[in-house]
Amino acid sequence: MDDVQTITLQRVLEALVDPVRRSIVTQLCETSVDLKCGSFDLPVSKSTATHHFRVLREAGLIHQYYVGTSRMNTLRRAEIDEAFPGLLDALVTADQKATPVPH
Amino acid sequence: MDDVQTITLQRVLEALVDPVRRSIVTQLCETSVDLKCGSFDLPVSKSTATHHFRVLREAGLIHQYYVGTSRMNTLRRAEIDEAFPGLLDALVTADQKATPVPH
Repeated sequence: MDDVQTITLQRVLEALVDPVRRSIVTQLCETSVDLKCGSFDLPVSKSTATHHFRVLREAGLIHQYYVGTSRMNTLRRAEIDEAFPGLLDALVTADQKATPVPH
Repeated sequence: MDDVQTITLQRVLEALVDPVRRSIVTQLCETSVDLKCGSFDLPVSKSTATHHFRVLREAGLIHQYYVGTSRMNTLRRAEIDEAFPGLLDALVTADQKATPVPH
């Protein structure tokens, strides 16, 4: 589960064109803590979710690590913001607007 | 060639995940005038370019109109910025950084 070294716009967009993956990133943005894979609210099976987490990791959007048997997810916000200033904020804001979450 | 009424994030991202279509939008952003289809610097055939212009139009990113036999392209910047604040600027800045154009 090594992190990718180079975050490219093409892979970031290929990752975030999928609404489930956008939802994962949006949920990570909305909390200040790292989240277990199982704690996301996603409309897909566990194995499908695992695939989506892998795509996000391979695009450089998230970092994953284990705590016991739980796989935790961290948004690589600083690195993404450095590579593409403003992109993550604009995308998350747009995603929240597109799919309002009840609070 | 009617413009779409509703610009959705999903269709905008599906349009802009393609590097040729991102290049069209970036080139429109870099100029203050509308551009003929034939005046873009694109690494694809004319018929492929026509397909890409259509996808951009159907996503609501561009408006097309004729002047004589020339098909002109306008970026629908105000509408995109209203729907998704900051997204277009962040994407164009990222695209310019990803694929630097010599000046």
